[in-house]
Amino acid sequence: MELWFTEKYSPNSGITIKVKKELAHKKSDFQEMSIIDTYEFGKIMVLDGFIMFTEKDEFIYHEMIAHVPLFSQENPENVLLIGGGDGGAVREVLKHNSVKRVDLVEIDKMVVDASKEFFPQVSSGFSDKRFHLHIEDGIKFVKQSKEKYDVVIVDSTDPIGPAVGLYQRDFYKNIYNILNDDGILVVQGESPYYRDTKEAFIALNKELKTVFPFTMPYFAFIPTYPSGMWSLGYARKDGKEILEPLRQKTFETKYYNSETHKASFAHPEFVKELLK
Amino acid sequence: MELWFTEKYSPNSGITIKVKKELAHKKSDFQEMSIIDTYEFGKIMVLDGFIMFTEKDEFIYHEMIAHVPLFSQENPENVLLIGGGDGGAVREVLKHNSVKRVDLVEIDKMVVDASKEFFPQVSSGFSDKRFHLHIEDGIKFVKQSKEKYDVVIVDSTDPIGPAVGLYQRDFYKNIYNILNDDGILVVQGESPYYRDTKEAFIALNKELKTVFPFTMPYFAFIPTYPSGMWSLGYARKDGKEILEPLRQKTFETKYYNSETHKASFAHPEFVKELLK
Repeated sequence: MELWFTEKYSPNSGITIKVKKELAHKKSDFQEMSIIDTYEFGKIMVLDGFIMFTEKDEFIYHEMIAHVPLFSQENPENVLLIGGGDGGAVREVLKHNSVKRVDLVEIDKMVVDASKEFFPQVSSGFSDKRFHLHIEDGIKFVKQSKEKYDVVIVDSTDPIGPAVGLYQRDFYKNIYNILNDDGILVVQGESPYYRDTKEAFIALNKELKTVFPFTMPYFAFIPTYPSGMWSLGYARKDGKEILEPLRQKTFETKYYNSETHKASFAHPEFVKELLK
Repeated sequence: MELWFTEKYSPNSGITIKVKKELAHKKSDFQEMSIIDTYEFGKIMVLDGFIMFTEKDEFIYHEMIAHVPLFSQENPENVLLIGGGDGGAVREVLKHNSVKRVDLVEIDKMVVDASKEFFPQVSSGFSDKRFHLHIEDGIKFVKQSKEKYDVVIVDSTDPIGPAVGLYQRDFYKNIYNILNDDGILVVQGESPYYRDTKEAFIALNKELKTVFPFTMPYFAFIPTYPSGMWSLGYARKDGKEILEPLRQKTFETKYYNSETHKASFAHPEFVKELLK
């Protein structure tokens, strides 16, 4: 028997992947998780039917969500992650020597545990002394936190189910309040290509604009996300249009570099239209 | 009954698309063609099982294969296209007022006829007075041509079947010879992501380097090509590293602009590794 996993990108299209074996299938109070082993992409974490990351290309998303904001600051010290309980973004953030503290707020302990068990290379940052895990609701955390952060990264699932509140104005306002004066927010930003993700992309960027004096989405090639053209929302509290790295890279990466950093902010004409 | 078309990107993965109807199915001496109508992507031309273009996103490939080389010259007048019998690249080339003559050499008349019948918006340039169609073998054409060109565009299928010779050194040498001193060659360049296309990507760029003093692939987001991260090979006879437009755009586009032009030459770290 051949086992194929298909993720629909729209009712009428999708990606289809041959599966070696389902390694785990669990349900939490928040979502349904499957860990599958595949021939093409290695192991994949699937939440509510959507690919969260694959071993083959997780480096692209995790490098780009972490290094673009961190290299857009001279000296990032305190970093907050909301979601991203797999630890991939944490691993990248911790490559910056300036970073003194990383708080990760994940609502669903199941994701953290699965990443530790099945993806040790993704969750490798969890043992770092600078890392602090909080299993709680990110929306409450940013409302109540007395800390100040240089960078906040919202590494969330799509804006359905548990992540709905992570795409709303009040949440961004609370993040604005706990950022330092030159603080940066980066948000998982959906794709402008298929209808559902396009609507989320437009709505998200509209909301960010109401709260931050400068915002601009940036893009990366992520072959296992719908359309392969994926965006991240970027917002600066100081309103400065800083779209290039302020520091030299001192560690290895596989996707990120100063050229891909700058290039990621180029918007095709149809994207400019959507953002008008 | 639901009809789904699946294009394999590797033996173990692919894109799957719900089909309204197959509009045509033909075989020529060179290849097998299917025209399908789909819910998500509109009409699609499929050759030997591979998507050539879809109505939804053909603009990206055709704008990027045409405008990057043409805007990299001050005054392109004579343009040669090898392959691309659908006419999409022709349509874009003809938007440049400086262009006086476009020769299109397509080996397979079936592709030209199908584009005229099913894709009038793609083949719209065929009625332009500057356009000249040659139904013949591109390899022979460039060997025998006495013309000189400012830009040559190789808009070919993958390097299997009829297009094999379009990826070989002698072919590039003959193109070099019919280019003006500051002439530019652009070649459909495959993707660095999946194994088969990656091997073609590496081989192609290696061959171009042996013939041209300056070559560098550039990239575009093309959601209906394998991985969505698609490359085009770019080679200059004058050896100059010109990676940005030399002129202002005076017409409408949906993907191409001066930012996406410059950004397309940014190489992720793993791509730099492949090109070493």
